[in-house]
Amino acid sequence: MSNKSYKGVKVLITGGLGFIGSTLAIRLAGEGAKIVIVDSLIPGYGGNLFNINPVKDKVRVIIADVRDTGQMNKLVGGQDLIFNLAGTLSHVDSMRDPMTDLEINCRAQLSLLESVRKYNPDVRIVFAGTRNQYGKAKYLPVDEDHPQEPTDINGINSIAAEKYHLMYTKVYGIKTVSLRMTNTFGPRHQMKHSRQGVLNWFIRLILEGQEVKLYGTGNQIRDVNYIDDVVEALYLTGRSEKGWGEAYNLGGIPVSLSEFVKTAVKTAKMGRVSVVPFPEEREKIEIGDYIASYEKIKKTYGWAPKTKLTEGIEKTIGYYLKYRNKYW
Amino acid sequence: MSNKSYKGVKVLITGGLGFIGSTLAIRLAGEGAKIVIVDSLIPGYGGNLFNINPVKDKVRVIIADVRDTGQMNKLVGGQDLIFNLAGTLSHVDSMRDPMTDLEINCRAQLSLLESVRKYNPDVRIVFAGTRNQYGKAKYLPVDEDHPQEPTDINGINSIAAEKYHLMYTKVYGIKTVSLRMTNTFGPRHQMKHSRQGVLNWFIRLILEGQEVKLYGTGNQIRDVNYIDDVVEALYLTGRSEKGWGEAYNLGGIPVSLSEFVKTAVKTAKMGRVSVVPFPEEREKIEIGDYIASYEKIKKTYGWAPKTKLTEGIEKTIGYYLKYRNKYW
Repeated sequence: MSNKSYKGVKVLITGGLGFIGSTLAIRLAGEGAKIVIVDSLIPGYGGNLFNINPVKDKVRVIIADVRDTGQMNKLVGGQDLIFNLAGTLSHVDSMRDPMTDLEINCRAQLSLLESVRKYNPDVRIVFAGTRNQYGKAKYLPVDEDHPQEPTDINGINSIAAEKYHLMYTKVYGIKTVSLRMTNTFGPRHQMKHSRQGVLNWFIRLILEGQEVKLYGTGNQIRDVNYIDDVVEALYLTGRSEKGWGEAYNLGGIPVSLSEFVKTAVKTAKMGRVSVVPFPEEREKIEIGDYIASYEKIKKTYGWAPKTKLTEGIEKTIGYYLKYRNKYW
Repeated sequence: MSNKSYKGVKVLITGGLGFIGSTLAIRLAGEGAKIVIVDSLIPGYGGNLFNINPVKDKVRVIIADVRDTGQMNKLVGGQDLIFNLAGTLSHVDSMRDPMTDLEINCRAQLSLLESVRKYNPDVRIVFAGTRNQYGKAKYLPVDEDHPQEPTDINGINSIAAEKYHLMYTKVYGIKTVSLRMTNTFGPRHQMKHSRQGVLNWFIRLILEGQEVKLYGTGNQIRDVNYIDDVVEALYLTGRSEKGWGEAYNLGGIPVSLSEFVKTAVKTAKMGRVSVVPFPEEREKIEIGDYIASYEKIKKTYGWAPKTKLTEGIEKTIGYYLKYRNKYW
């Protein structure tokens, strides 16, 4: 790999037809990376072939499941870099079907690392962690040393998967890094249900002229990242010579859910917002306010979110107004 | 369940033919508990039918694997209390065969909790955590808030399993507790290999008149617990009305490995000790000195280790001199 450039770099993106993977693929394809996407296209999980439409002739797409060890053994061979983004991110699904969450977010991750150890130990891996690993914040902003007490199975499996990765750096010297992602929104997120994050779901409701019902007061703080900022973080870490074997928070603009929705309503000139009491199932796993500290990644990689909330919302709404029929 | 007594209490012990499970079974059978033991008797894992010889007519033994969901669904029904002790505890095995470690120590644990949630949500569960969850100590003594950065797969899977348990308390109200065990030694530990803990292995070597070779300086500190103290902790937590949903360190007598071996040599009047350089594979996962703080369990349950090192070693040597043919 030539230094800091992606030209000619062989990149495998697991979950590459999903929201984040596809946006990353488009950026890297534009810089001349040789991209292989692996995605299972499991209904409801966020993979969408249309997501990579702008680069569909520049990337190789393999429809396969990260749980398929035989396939993964072959696919990791010869790669320079793996963006390991496959996985589900649903609180509710992980509680309804915990064993499947474990298979995908825990077992398949360890299996991928074993494939790498055996067949391509020189590859580098950027893993997508999540703020779900922390659970309810004991203090704000949440830094990387904050206790990890998830309120759902998904968060626990993400912890295990991240720890597998970082341990493979410590013990085997395989370069891995984890980016713990916060609430990400933007174009290419699936729009069929709210179970993988509410921000894009709110935008769908608004674009349908519906009422967005926020639980509790609606004043819960989240820090939100626009997709391009998340892709920038992946981009920076993937080509860096430093920082391996560590986990880094991403973090964004602290905003209340009601502020997010009101901004979207204003931009779309449609929809409206109200507050309703918490359903019991959601209240049990509600994490309260969440703001991440992104000082560590800023210090190591110089990353900081750049996109203003209004700008991100405008771009997102613009995208779905144009391609609504591919996502609804 | 009548308060604080085990008389008539229906107890399921997973891994109940192993070192800790069998010693617990003997104690609880003596108090009139109705015990079902489930153990897979996988060769090399520590299960031994002879372990429960003193109570073999008082307990029901089911040879089954905790990975067998159908079996476990049936076995959890009707129980008052589960001591969930099944699992492997081998650093080296978990690195050589990580997927099996995941199946037993992570997947089967979540599966058991799902069985409980569906078929017996009123049962209480005492889970066996481990000091391996912490990895190399960043400070001593290690308390429960110490960062958890294991140096092996086994430690990571134990973290996930413990977190599943405690999360089921938080979300579903199922009473679980985790005891993070340190180096335990005593009668009924398997004596065929050193991969599940070195203390008993040292005693075997000594009883064979062999030389115990300690890695590095031999001055690594461990805190060691005699088996009866560990069983006392299980006993106290299992019948308590308080303290559920939390993890507690066990902890024992801080002693250097060489001091432990020298005491055993002196007691046995056999064997000898030397030091050798670390093999590379072991050095990578060596955790340095380890001493746990057991203040939390002391405060909540009044537990503290009582057995003196010499007493524990004497009883252990006495047991294996008598029953050597059942363990060698």
